Amino acid sequence: MRSTMQDVPLSVADLVRYGTAVHGAASVVTWTGGEPRRSSLAEVGRRAARLAHALRELGVTGDQRVATFQWNNQEHLESYLAVPAMGAVLHTLNIRLHPDQIRYIANHAEDHVVIVDASLLPVLTPLLPDLKTVRHVVVAGGGPDDLPAPQAVPDGVQVHRYDELLAGRPEEFDWPVADERDAAAMCYTSGTTGDPRGVAYSHRSIWLHSMQVCMSDGLEVRPEDRVLAVVPMFHAMSWGLPYAALMVGCSLVLPDRFLQPGPLADMVAAERPTLAAAVPTVWQGLVRELETAPRDVSTLRRVVIGGAACPPALMRLFEERYGIPVLHAWGMTETSPLGSVAHPPAGAEGERRWSYRLSQGRLPASVRGRLVGADGHPVPHDGRGVGELEVRGPWVTGSYHRGADPDRFHDGWLRTGDVGTLTPDGYLRLTDRSKDVIKSGGEWISSVELEGHLMAHPDVREAAVVAVPDEKWGERPLAAVVLEPGAAAGFAELRDFLAEHVARWQLPDWWSLVAEVPKTSVGKFDKKLIRQQHAAGELAAVRL
Amino acid sequence: MRSTMQDVPLSVADLVRYGTAVHGAASVVTWTGGEPRRSSLAEVGRRAARLAHALRELGVTGDQRVATFQWNNQEHLESYLAVPAMGAVLHTLNIRLHPDQIRYIANHAEDHVVIVDASLLPVLTPLLPDLKTVRHVVVAGGGPDDLPAPQAVPDGVQVHRYDELLAGRPEEFDWPVADERDAAAMCYTSGTTGDPRGVAYSHRSIWLHSMQVCMSDGLEVRPEDRVLAVVPMFHAMSWGLPYAALMVGCSLVLPDRFLQPGPLADMVAAERPTLAAAVPTVWQGLVRELETAPRDVSTLRRVVIGGAACPPALMRLFEERYGIPVLHAWGMTETSPLGSVAHPPAGAEGERRWSYRLSQGRLPASVRGRLVGADGHPVPHDGRGVGELEVRGPWVTGSYHRGADPDRFHDGWLRTGDVGTLTPDGYLRLTDRSKDVIKSGGEWISSVELEGHLMAHPDVREAAVVAVPDEKWGERPLAAVVLEPGAAAGFAELRDFLAEHVARWQLPDWWSLVAEVPKTSVGKFDKKLIRQQHAAGELAAVRL
Repeated sequence: MRSTMQDVPLSVADLVRYGTAVHGAASVVTWTGGEPRRSSLAEVGRRAARLAHALRELGVTGDQRVATFQWNNQEHLESYLAVPAMGAVLHTLNIRLHPDQIRYIANHAEDHVVIVDASLLPVLTPLLPDLKTVRHVVVAGGGPDDLPAPQAVPDGVQVHRYDELLAGRPEEFDWPVADERDAAAMCYTSGTTGDPRGVAYSHRSIWLHSMQVCMSDGLEVRPEDRVLAVVPMFHAMSWGLPYAALMVGCSLVLPDRFLQPGPLADMVAAERPTLAAAVPTVWQGLVRELETAPRDVSTLRRVVIGGAACPPALMRLFEERYGIPVLHAWGMTETSPLGSVAHPPAGAEGERRWSYRLSQGRLPASVRGRLVGADGHPVPHDGRGVGELEVRGPWVTGSYHRGADPDRFHDGWLRTGDVGTLTPDGYLRLTDRSKDVIKSGGEWISSVELEGHLMAHPDVREAAVVAVPDEKWGERPLAAVVLEPGAAAGFAELRDFLAEHVARWQLPDWWSLVAEVPKTSVGKFDKKLIRQQHAAGELAAVRL
Repeated sequence: MRSTMQDVPLSVADLVRYGTAVHGAASVVTWTGGEPRRSSLAEVGRRAARLAHALRELGVTGDQRVATFQWNNQEHLESYLAVPAMGAVLHTLNIRLHPDQIRYIANHAEDHVVIVDASLLPVLTPLLPDLKTVRHVVVAGGGPDDLPAPQAVPDGVQVHRYDELLAGRPEEFDWPVADERDAAAMCYTSGTTGDPRGVAYSHRSIWLHSMQVCMSDGLEVRPEDRVLAVVPMFHAMSWGLPYAALMVGCSLVLPDRFLQPGPLADMVAAERPTLAAAVPTVWQGLVRELETAPRDVSTLRRVVIGGAACPPALMRLFEERYGIPVLHAWGMTETSPLGSVAHPPAGAEGERRWSYRLSQGRLPASVRGRLVGADGHPVPHDGRGVGELEVRGPWVTGSYHRGADPDRFHDGWLRTGDVGTLTPDGYLRLTDRSKDVIKSGGEWISSVELEGHLMAHPDVREAAVVAVPDEKWGERPLAAVVLEPGAAAGFAELRDFLAEHVARWQLPDWWSLVAEVPKTSVGKFDKKLIRQQHAAGELAAVRL
């Protein structure tokens, strides 16, 4: 029996129509280093309409991709509204990637237009000759001289100034309502190996995800909130905050390129946000800044931390020194990105409460999770069984654009590459990436857990644990250890120390003393390199 | 371009699977007058599985309707889970309707099974011979003698005891995932004229509506809430609270048949709910009860009032005497029911804030509203233009079951029958029902507004304003007035008094002095009867 409900597609067009009218008074502030630029959702809506008319004139039809190469600012927000609402696909290019990756991504997505902040021209201009499908470059902001040099612009590519392009166009656009499963926006995710992979969000997924961002078990964004969105709009849709603003009418404070601790602290003091969202390193910088130059941050009723595990000390510091509760969240580009959010359960107090809050959080009804063990079988959600997390839901990707990397999917579920546990009440605790976990005899050994215990030994400065091939077990752990200056602990002592905390079969077979653990460009242990060194016989390791 | 998102249907089956596992510890308390019955979502889930197995054995297949004739209690909740999740359609029968309507509705919906509370058998049993499609009656609760008398049960109908039917059956059920647009539940709405009309909610509408109930611009139901659901589960899905509990894990306090002010006050004191939802008359009764016999109601962080306009005095009393904020909401069976919720906008203070809070509230992104004027044309959303509200959205009905009353729909929008204004920032103020409004020369005159002004005159005890036919204008207002004992105000004086508040063309042409305004069975002015009396020449009225 069919329901009698209206068949109304969920669409960014309707979200734009609603948000810019009903919540037109919500403010949109862009930091400039000097006087902030102040606007409103109503004004952003009118400018988005102009932008859509302009893009149509540049030949943007159907589901063509319009790329942005921008910081978090008003013009970027205008594209968030205009491009999906006109039926095209917003492609947020990650400005921090290696030029080779940016080239690959823009070509793979077949971007027709790139809207670029003038301040980012030095990064984009050298790539223009290699962007095969781009026909128009639109430069937002900057002075009269902030345009690519004519000789840097390939034949067939036109350069426009954003404001000139919008000038004089109609302030209304008849936003078409799309099929809700059509692509509205896309974002590429770049692993440490292989080519970047495209995720294409749908009108439906954006709508549902925006609702979750405003739900009590989501980020609880409220109409009266002023949201400082530090998390980049070029990465995983700024955690859904721009569209949440359209949905419930919160105001937005956009930091543009002023992401250093000093300007961020100034922004908080001046714009008085009630909620702010960023990765842990941003907050670590802010805390250090506040220690040397205090500002009033008392308007923040909550800080959302995601993108990487939140160090417990940082969460406690925020709360104990500044009285600001930290909300820990987990997600990835592939999950729109909101996966789990660490609201503690009712009744949890003291350390138990902290433990829930430091977990990756609880999966909401719309993001089902399951664990798959080393043997490919389901792992129980008992808080102990370790497996790779697979997720399924209406805002989780089920493939990559143009079919890349199909082995990242499993019966319609996304293999997250994250390894950890799930509790019966739905809390996720990640312990490792699947590529770093040691698969030993059908069981998994967490490299992160071993490292944590090892680094608790007073003689150990750093320790990285990696998998090395083993004929009998498949893989066995190797520990690469940096001792404190003058420390004398031997491997046997360290192994006995570890044995107090983990099962015997999890103890590393191989031990290596190193001067330093090699790191990646973002400061993480470069476990791939350690494994390569071991394979090449370049690492002196003893078997215990 | 298709998105890469997973194609995951929104389904009650998944909601049940999620809620009973992840939020299994949430409590479900049923009031009994004595010791409350205590259960959990996990236990309710296990019993729902047993119920589903039992219903299959009773021949419930496909999309057959399983009706409930129950108060708010644990067994009713078990049907909320089991019936839609097994792929059948939950039909909540309104126990308060006239027997003729109940007969009509059960036959129109073709109910196969009726689950009935033993305490309601005296109402249902006499109807059994007329319920043509019912094959099974399942009696929940009650003692050994609480069964229909054998001679009252028609041939071909079997009677079962609920607990016996569930006993010994498996506590798990492989809930099938339905097409999200299939019917999951249905509820009939009964107007004052014509046959009741069936609204069939879909899996999709229930899922989206549950999200809205937990959103910051919805009812903001939170995981840690204990929700006292006074609003009946037999009417408009108890405002979405049962499914919201599955979605975010709030606890539920269910009053069963104990809806009198005394037991409700006891429930609040004993079960310490943080949120409660009911129609205004329930809260008026509770307030009177608390005045004579105080109880501790301090756990309530919010009271939701809907179903009828909230008297301003009631809202102020709740806040000023008990410190409990009142959240006013508007909706109807046809809107699942959550339409608008009166959260005031950021920055509104004092009387302006009260005015927003006493409005019907703001329409959320998923419920689009428009006003259609007396002439059939759109009315601007400027807070002044008056029109009939039409709504559109994924949880708004687009037809009635089996095509009843097609003229209640207009280009895919629902004509609500409510008349009022919309502000540019999305707030709805209802002034009248469209059947009561006076359509005069292409303009609308609000009967409720005229009545309000008239009743503010010290000599007027009651006043009802109705439309009477007029050759020139179509309709003109007639005022039927009850004077205070000994009062001497004449019609001319009353008209002059009115003229201070409304435009001249809105003043009643016809005036009638009556001893009492006739009322309907629920105490509302019976305007239909007044119009009939006037038409039959039974009402002495003078033309001014």
